[in-house]
Amino acid sequence: MRCDVLAVGTELLLGQIVDTNSSWMGEQLAASGVDSLLQVKVGDNVGRIIAQIERLLVDADALILCGGLGPTHDDLTREAIAAVMGVELRLDQGVADVIRTMFESRGRRMSENNLRQAMVPVGATVIPQTRGTAPGLICPVMVGGVEKVVFAVPGVPHELYDMFQRAVLPELLERAGEPSVIVSRVLRTWGESESGLNERLDHLIAELDEAGNPTLAFLASGWEGLKVRLTAKAETTASAAELIEVWDRRIRDELGDQVFGVDTQTMESVVLDALRDRGSTLGLAESVTGGLVAGRLTSVPGSSEVLRGSIVSYATEVKQSLLGVAAGPVVNEQAAVEMAEGARRVLGADVGLALTGVAGPAEQDGMPAGTLCVGIATPSGSLARTLRVPGQREQMRQFAVISSLDLLRRHLNDLDIGH
Amino acid sequence: MRCDVLAVGTELLLGQIVDTNSSWMGEQLAASGVDSLLQVKVGDNVGRIIAQIERLLVDADALILCGGLGPTHDDLTREAIAAVMGVELRLDQGVADVIRTMFESRGRRMSENNLRQAMVPVGATVIPQTRGTAPGLICPVMVGGVEKVVFAVPGVPHELYDMFQRAVLPELLERAGEPSVIVSRVLRTWGESESGLNERLDHLIAELDEAGNPTLAFLASGWEGLKVRLTAKAETTASAAELIEVWDRRIRDELGDQVFGVDTQTMESVVLDALRDRGSTLGLAESVTGGLVAGRLTSVPGSSEVLRGSIVSYATEVKQSLLGVAAGPVVNEQAAVEMAEGARRVLGADVGLALTGVAGPAEQDGMPAGTLCVGIATPSGSLARTLRVPGQREQMRQFAVISSLDLLRRHLNDLDIGH
Repeated sequence: MRCDVLAVGTELLLGQIVDTNSSWMGEQLAASGVDSLLQVKVGDNVGRIIAQIERLLVDADALILCGGLGPTHDDLTREAIAAVMGVELRLDQGVADVIRTMFESRGRRMSENNLRQAMVPVGATVIPQTRGTAPGLICPVMVGGVEKVVFAVPGVPHELYDMFQRAVLPELLERAGEPSVIVSRVLRTWGESESGLNERLDHLIAELDEAGNPTLAFLASGWEGLKVRLTAKAETTASAAELIEVWDRRIRDELGDQVFGVDTQTMESVVLDALRDRGSTLGLAESVTGGLVAGRLTSVPGSSEVLRGSIVSYATEVKQSLLGVAAGPVVNEQAAVEMAEGARRVLGADVGLALTGVAGPAEQDGMPAGTLCVGIATPSGSLARTLRVPGQREQMRQFAVISSLDLLRRHLNDLDIGH
Repeated sequence: MRCDVLAVGTELLLGQIVDTNSSWMGEQLAASGVDSLLQVKVGDNVGRIIAQIERLLVDADALILCGGLGPTHDDLTREAIAAVMGVELRLDQGVADVIRTMFESRGRRMSENNLRQAMVPVGATVIPQTRGTAPGLICPVMVGGVEKVVFAVPGVPHELYDMFQRAVLPELLERAGEPSVIVSRVLRTWGESESGLNERLDHLIAELDEAGNPTLAFLASGWEGLKVRLTAKAETTASAAELIEVWDRRIRDELGDQVFGVDTQTMESVVLDALRDRGSTLGLAESVTGGLVAGRLTSVPGSSEVLRGSIVSYATEVKQSLLGVAAGPVVNEQAAVEMAEGARRVLGADVGLALTGVAGPAEQDGMPAGTLCVGIATPSGSLARTLRVPGQREQMRQFAVISSLDLLRRHLNDLDIGH
């Protein structure tokens, strides 16, 4: 099964919006065993949209049009598909009623052009809208005696994601004669390079390649770590989930505590949960990261139950006067411990986490850019570790955030933290 | 002049990398008056690359191929272009020498496959490489008796940007018979919506549309504000720069102090410069933003000369014990002033800036999500302002960062800050 993508919108060609939708769909299609061999951006011009649909359908079995479903005269996807199908557009009364009700429920007046969104090519099936106002479309198209299919989905990412998973992917898989339930799980890892993970999972990957189900993919996510995504196809959700369970266990047997979470868990949510489970509060002292650790932790709703605050001690005098760091160089393990203990004391927290280091470009206290000293203070004692963090200034700082949180996660869970 | 884009790389179709290169080039082309009507992603398959080049050159005058110029067997752009030109690839000794020297200067062994990057279609011109190892190509192609042009540029963004501006755009403009010097300037603004800016600049935009040079574009940059980009074409850099100067002044006459910087200046760099110019240091007290203001300021190299630090007082008790905020509700102007004064005192800074507010989703102290109180404390007194900040939790926090820095910028420069 080959499904190409046509992203519609002049703003995409002008670079006002980056087309992340095609990439997202490409990733989903590949995980489901569907090839996507051409992805095209075209502007809001009905002639060019029609030409592209016809051209792409020569080789592809299916085509997803993304965008151009809104209410304005620039939204031409419906017209173009109807022209390719050789049919007219008709008002779908059910869709029109939904649109009207949606406006009324928000207490807003519906201008008549919104009903453009209820126009449906004769012979097409509507994908009901649940979030926005434009429904999607499933449109059978005959090409040289073969029935192919054109999908139309909105360009607003969260509407697209919803319709793609709810209607487009199941329809594609059914047409491909494939089991139509897809279940994915992402294992979030930290501490190993992509090639390192690849090597450790080598024999499992070979076995999966042989079996073909589930599929496994690495997703590099920079300073969020590496993601290992498993995608299983099956006849039922239960059997797909079971497949995922089996392989989740096998991967964890290999990677052990490098797996810090699954799916939407992040290093910050995992650390906050670990502290909350222990009934502990956290206080931070940040130098090199300048508040980024606190910024990341406070992005998690509910973090206020755990996080007391952070002393961003950028100036050396602040480290000394406020945190009680001894006079002298401040990029070393002793200073990191003093900062962590100071954070505990000043912020009234159970656990203190401190970061001092050199983001660069210049060295500091004779330590090269990339040096990171992390201090952890708890009621039962303190410790520090020195790490070498890669990257230029901003990248180094972001890597420092997740590296220090990972160290705290390991310490809280009595895992190996090196020496 | 129409120049389409073909981005080459299977990783783009699989969604492992988002194709930001086409968007960037689309933006640059539009600013220079060149149409880009189709932008296509294709995988590392020589047959499909050739088919796309031939297809796109039917309608386009020029085509930029981006990616597929590396040293591995997956890098097929050179082969595909040579096939379309109907010529063979030959080793360019000059390019080979540059590649060899680059490896030697880094003390690394050059594997022979790197010489693939020195293979050039007969009749093509090399765009010398200055940063990476793969040179770009300018390849004349005859299509139906008309000479068109295919460019090949690397997929690594900073290499692409360099070659595009140095060689691709000048060549395109020369072929279009246009003046070949392009100068751009971005005016960074904060405080007005896109439609608001549009309205205020309406008569200038009409005048520019009439004249056609320079062009003006709005670039929405979310919580970085709105950018107004001027792009002038001329025969010489001096005359293009002069055009830019004239229109820069006319736009500033309209927008006044909403323009906070130009080009690479950011709100944080502007605020740090303003404080540095006055010989003042800054101390922060952050609640709702949880360290993000400090994180942004410390991303600017040299910020340590100005920024003393930040007290991220996430817990109410920390606001009271450390910053001296009075008992009671903490999302109001009085608390913001107490926090700003506390930051000055505790951090030993000349100026204190404090943020307290409600990121949501829930309300706090009876204040709705989106409430932001900013306090500013200086040796000559303190003040506070309450703002309504749009967006969900994370967006609200980011808007709060730039809003509070803008308030400080205005205060430092004796500009209107409302009441």
